[in-house]
Formats: sequence, C-alpha cells, structure tokens
Amino acid sequence: MSKATVFSDITIVTSNDDACVSVMEHAYCVVYEDKIRYVGLSKEEALEKAGLLSDDDVSVYEGKNKILCPTFANAHAHTPMSIFRNIADDFSLQDWLFGEIIPREDRMITDDFTYGHLLTLAEMIEGGTACAANMYDGANQITLASAEAGFRLQQTAMGKTCKDGVWSADSKNVEDFIALCNEQGKGLVKPSLLVHSVYLYPGSFYAELSELAKKYDIPVSVHISETIKENEDCMSSYGCTPVEYLDRAGLLSDTTVAAHCVHLTENDMRILAERKSWVAHNASSNMKLASGFADMVGMQKAGIRLCLGTDGASSNNNQDMFMEMRLASFMAKGKTYDPTVMKASDVFHMATRNGYLACGFEDCGIIEEGMKADIQIIDYDCPQMWPLGNPISALVYSCGPKCVESVMINGKFVLYKHDLMTIDFEKVRFETKKTMERLK
Amino acid sequence: MSKATVFSDITIVTSNDDACVSVMEHAYCVVYEDKIRYVGLSKEEALEKAGLLSDDDVSVYEGKNKILCPTFANAHAHTPMSIFRNIADDFSLQDWLFGEIIPREDRMITDDFTYGHLLTLAEMIEGGTACAANMYDGANQITLASAEAGFRLQQTAMGKTCKDGVWSADSKNVEDFIALCNEQGKGLVKPSLLVHSVYLYPGSFYAELSELAKKYDIPVSVHISETIKENEDCMSSYGCTPVEYLDRAGLLSDTTVAAHCVHLTENDMRILAERKSWVAHNASSNMKLASGFADMVGMQKAGIRLCLGTDGASSNNNQDMFMEMRLASFMAKGKTYDPTVMKASDVFHMATRNGYLACGFEDCGIIEEGMKADIQIIDYDCPQMWPLGNPISALVYSCGPKCVESVMINGKFVLYKHDLMTIDFEKVRFETKKTMERLK
Repeated sequence: MSKATVFSDITIVTSNDDACVSVMEHAYCVVYEDKIRYVGLSKEEALEKAGLLSDDDVSVYEGKNKILCPTFANAHAHTPMSIFRNIADDFSLQDWLFGEIIPREDRMITDDFTYGHLLTLAEMIEGGTACAANMYDGANQITLASAEAGFRLQQTAMGKTCKDGVWSADSKNVEDFIALCNEQGKGLVKPSLLVHSVYLYPGSFYAELSELAKKYDIPVSVHISETIKENEDCMSSYGCTPVEYLDRAGLLSDTTVAAHCVHLTENDMRILAERKSWVAHNASSNMKLASGFADMVGMQKAGIRLCLGTDGASSNNNQDMFMEMRLASFMAKGKTYDPTVMKASDVFHMATRNGYLACGFEDCGIIEEGMKADIQIIDYDCPQMWPLGNPISALVYSCGPKCVESVMINGKFVLYKHDLMTIDFEKVRFETKKTMERLK
Repeated sequence: MSKATVFSDITIVTSNDDACVSVMEHAYCVVYEDKIRYVGLSKEEALEKAGLLSDDDVSVYEGKNKILCPTFANAHAHTPMSIFRNIADDFSLQDWLFGEIIPREDRMITDDFTYGHLLTLAEMIEGGTACAANMYDGANQITLASAEAGFRLQQTAMGKTCKDGVWSADSKNVEDFIALCNEQGKGLVKPSLLVHSVYLYPGSFYAELSELAKKYDIPVSVHISETIKENEDCMSSYGCTPVEYLDRAGLLSDTTVAAHCVHLTENDMRILAERKSWVAHNASSNMKLASGFADMVGMQKAGIRLCLGTDGASSNNNQDMFMEMRLASFMAKGKTYDPTVMKASDVFHMATRNGYLACGFEDCGIIEEGMKADIQIIDYDCPQMWPLGNPISALVYSCGPKCVESVMINGKFVLYKHDLMTIDFEKVRFETKKTMERLK
C-alpha cells in the first residue's frame, strides 16, 4: 500500500481517553498504511503530509455532509450464531437453548464456523463495527477467516477438554492457538481464554483455568450474572455471587471481559471496579431474553469500565452497535426515570474507545495522529439524519447501518461506498443457507 | 394509471383481523389502480388477472429473496419536529421542552410546517411507513404536502382559539379543515380533533371539545398519562386519573387515539378497553424521556386495542417503526421477565393493521384482495437479514430501513428500489437546513 488517503472537509467525531467526545467541523484526516498520520483543520498541511508519504497520487475522499468517526468494537459476540438467526424467538431461555440451539451446534462442521463468522463480519462491517470480542468454538477457522477479511478480533481459545464428563485444562490447545494468532492472524487477532460462566464447569476447575490465563498472560472471557437464576444457583452451590466466586478463583483482572452483569450486588460492583475488569453490556439481548435491565448507571458510578456488545445474532437478532448505543442509553434513562443519565457521549465512548481497549487493541478507537486507522464514514445527507444538529446525538440516536458509507480497518477499506471489499457475500450467502438447511 | 403490477414469486407476510400473522412463500400479488386484486400461489392466475385489468403491458416486480408485507401506520407522530432533531438531548423534559423546543416552535412560519413534514415523510417512507396519526399545528400546509407526496395521514384540527388567555372552541376552524381534507386531501388525509392532554387547557373546556368531536364525528387525538407528574397533577386538580377525567368529558370512544398511557391504573385499563379506544405505545420516546416502561402486557390482557408510534423526531430521534416494533417487544419482555410475551407477531399486527385502523383507514394494513395497495418490499438478500429463518421474526427483530427496497401507497410507488418518487429530498434538505439555522 503506497497511497495516502485524505478525508477532506469532513466532520470528525471522536472520543479520547478522558471519555470526552469532541466534534471538529471542516476537518482533514490523512491515513497512510495502517495509521492515522494527520488530524486537523488545514487542507494544505493534510495534502502536504499525504504527498510526502505517498509514492503515488494521493487519494481524496470528499467529506461534504459526512462524519468520520472511530469504528465500533463489539465487546461481546458469538459470531457463527448468525446461522441460527430468527429460527426460535419468543421462547423461554431453556426451550431456546436446549431445544433449538444446542442440538444444532452439536452438528456443526468446520465450514459452518468459517461462513457463520464471515456472515456476521459482513453484517458488522456494514454497520460500522471493525472489531469484536468473540466467544465461540472453531477458533482456528474463525481466526483465519478474520485475518482474510481484515477484521480485528479477540477470540477465545478453548483451553480445556472434557473426557468421560471430566474437564481438564489443555495447555497445548492454548499454546497452539496463540501460535496461530501470531503466525496467521496478520496482527488482527488476539487470543483470550474461554471461561464461559460459573455454571458450566465443576467448581474445582476454575483455579486451573485461572492458572492457564496467567501462564500465557491472556485475557479471560466470561459471562457473569446474566440471569437471576444464575445468581441463585451460584449462591446455593458456592455461598457467594458469581463475581465473588470468579474473583476468588483469580479470574477477574484488568483484561477480563465480563459479559452481561445484569444482577450485581454493591459488593460485586466494588470488586469489578477494583479489578478494573471490563463489563460488556448487552442491552438488546438482556431485554429480548428477559434477563432484566442491567444497572448501567450504578456500574458507572461505581467506576466500572463499561463497553457494549450485541451478544449472538440468535438472541438479538442483529449485530447493530448503533442499536446497542441507543438502547444502552434508553434503558438507563427508563430504569432511573432520569433522561440526563447515560448521555450520547457516554455510550459513544463505550462503543468505540472502551470497546477496543476491552478487546485488547490499545492503539485503536480514537481519531488521532499515530492511532491505527479504524475509521467509519457516515453519510448524513439522508432523511433519517437531517438536519444534523449535534453530531454526537445524531450518531447515537438517529443513525443506523443504512448511513454507514465506508469502513476502514488498519488503513484498508473493507467497505467502500457501501460495497464489501474483503468478503464475498454471495459465497457466504450460499454456504450459510446450505448450513441452515442441513441443521434444520 | 392503467398498468397492473404483478409481484412475482415473493414471500408474503401479513396479519389479519384476528391478529394472526401468516407467511405465504412463492406467492403472487397483483395491484391495479389503488387496490390489491389478487393474492395467491398461482402464477397463471396472477398474470391472467393482471392482463385482464391492464390496458397496457403488465409490470412484473421480481420477488426472489424479497418479502412483501403491509406498510406501517405510525399511530403517534409530530411530523414537523424533525427540524428540531438532535438539538437538545439528554436534557430533562422541562429544559428540553421549555428551553429548546417551544421557543423555536413560537417562531415557525408556514413553510417550516410544509418542509418539516415532508422531511419526516421522506424518512417514514424510506423506513416502510405509509401512514401516520399526526398531532401538530399547520394542519393545512401538512395536508396539502401529504396529498402531494401520496402519503396517508390522520391530521389534527386545532378546533380552538385562545384569546387573552381564555380558550374557546372554534367550529369554523374544524369545518374548514374537514372541507380542505375532502377537497384537496386526495382521499389520503382524514381529520381528527386535537385535545392534546388533560394539562393544557382549563377543566371547563374539555366538554366543549367533546361536543365538537361529536358534532363533526371526528376522532380525538390526545396524550394520556405520559408521566407520573401528569397523573399526580390531574389527581390533585380533578381528584381522578387522566383516563377517568377524559372519559367523564366524553372524549374516549372507539376512534380516540390515546398516546403513551405509561402510567395506568387497573380501572384506567378497564375504561380504555370498554371504550375500545386505541392506545399508541411509544417505546423509544418513553425510554428516552425517562417517562417509564408502559405496561403493554397488562394492557393487552385487559383487551385494550394497541398500536405503535414513534412520537416526534426530537424525542426519539428517528421515525423508524422497525425500531418501535422491536423495542415494544423487548420492553415488555424485560419488564415482565418473560421472553414469551409480546411476540413478533403481536407487535407486527400493532404496527400494521391496528395502526391503520387507529388512523381511520379500515381498508388498509392487510395483504388481501380488495384492500388498498399499501405495500412494502423488503430485500432480505443482505447480511443483517440472512439466513431468513422465520420471516415474522426477521421483520421484527433483524430488519431495518436499510432493507426497505420499495413502498407503494394507494397503488402508487412512493419509493421504488430505494429512490423517493414523490418527494424532492434536495429541496426539502435545503429548506429544512435554512429553517434550522433561522430558528437557532
């Protein structure tokens, strides 16, 4: 790649590390190779910088009636589950999971992980998402597919085997997966350890998992307190809450991504804040599965680091981070009877900078010189975004995938003026339909 | 119009008057002039019927990977408020309404109503909405603009004047507006009477409004129990709830559209069910303004007739009925901790057939021979809708404006393969931006 791109006369919206979201109008942004090289108001400076970097013509992206902002990092996903989309809705969790989903998952083959994952990446990219924390089996296929599609991912390694109903840690599996990420992930895929939840494995096993995460210095990916039942069962099995239990096992650190956290005690919040663990809030999924309304305002006040996720497409049923920002704000306002809480800027920061940090990509999620070029272009020249008003409000409360014109990841366009550049959707469509019919 | 349109080999999803939503695959639908002339599985019958009707070639709309379903009727809107979109969010209701909105509304001129309305119609059409119950001033301009755009509307007549702080009924105003609807509404605009709420006028005035509605036999359009404060104030002024108060004044009938109804007593629900009044639920607005979570399941059980609305674009901040269906379902599930309530088919029926009935259009909202041709075509050949699964779930939980390919109202395409056919968006964009800047 030898051509610099200049985003010209555009409205730039970005958060920073103080969670302060700012707007710069009539701005310029230069991207060269994988990085942002200039952000500012001078056309001359932008063009000069781009000219010096390029050994070819500079490519200019006209920014009239457009917003340039960071792409989203979806902090809780189960990507291949899009193949189970809309097959079993309005069911109880038990009927849905055990009657419809698990019997299908048990029959999945290698290609299903690849194409299910690519289907979700296509949807995510079209909706301005460039990064995800993914919790699912098929880690190798998923990693290769992500690298090929040019998409950032934190992907769970299994790290365990189950023989005759007995779980044991599996170092080799983790080591191999780390090696695969390093060798074939193109710098875009990072490993984490699947811990899943407090209810899936015998109590004795959590300390082993904790040792494994420490040994390889990888983040822990876990569901916590998604339902009241989970809390009640944990209390009756272990005499403590899921947060307390996982903390005792040493599984909560500043790289842990804890999904859901719908039902936390004050002490749970104190622990999560002290450990600097990430909480990935899933507003749509929690409402759709009737898990409850997470206390986002309480978590925010407790100083917990918050990010947003969609959960799997079979319990949402899309992968739209605009929807999650909007709903995270709406749910918090509705729950507290206070329209001033969980402002547009709060959820925008969670969906961008915090999401990337939670996924382990520290040089992404802010539009700033030196950061990786993970960028989306929003076209606001359309009825649903017009007149623009406050661009931050517009992005959170009015925008949707329809307005996402282009997406760049690591300096490369993966969506260019509404066309997917790295995923062959026709092939994905064909393969996933076949899978869906086979698993019926 | 002399050409019949055949929608060919398409998936038809429709509700009926028993609120039963059905799916017909590989189906055919013939439209001629303003009506649906055939719905069924026979290509031969469809083409024969179309050929007999047309005195020109038949136009065939290919339906592969597409859904044909009724358009939405948005049962609570304030259309011109889109010009105030995203200017004042995350504010308290008081600061928002009295500090930001009303000072701007006071300075609106004739054209602002026209272009603000057209901006909203453009957004609604692009999102599959073909009809709205609109509560706003500027009724004449709005009516003419709607008729020109080919959009169905129930529009409030003011029916009152305020002189030296004293309100009085204004028969002439209502009469003139009814005449305008009849003469220039092209059969698309029907009048209702603006009652607004229990808190805007002196108590003595409600009986007069009731007389006016009866005299001209027009529906009443009113906000009820949007906030706890409204209920408390009503109780302290009149010693009863807003529903009880309006019922005593004779304002609740089977044509009344009562927006919000967030805080109802059991007796309120009984009254609304007995009167067969319509309740227009506004999930997004109620959450965003922190009014509360309406008890949709309770209202459903009480037998209340339910429909859905977006409220104004300045308190939502879009006009997306897909979002409202999804959120109405999610809110009810979350509130009751039961994922099986407020199913996809329930909210689809509310957004289509019930919405049209609430707006006073009895021959719309069902895909059936003899009904008016208000139809949308959804393209599900895209990552967010693939694989389709259950089409009803897909429409409610996965779909969005991005997937709306075409919209027909009264047999005429107003959106054809993503292009607006009756609204000049460039003109609307120019005028609304001017307005927004003038009212700053």
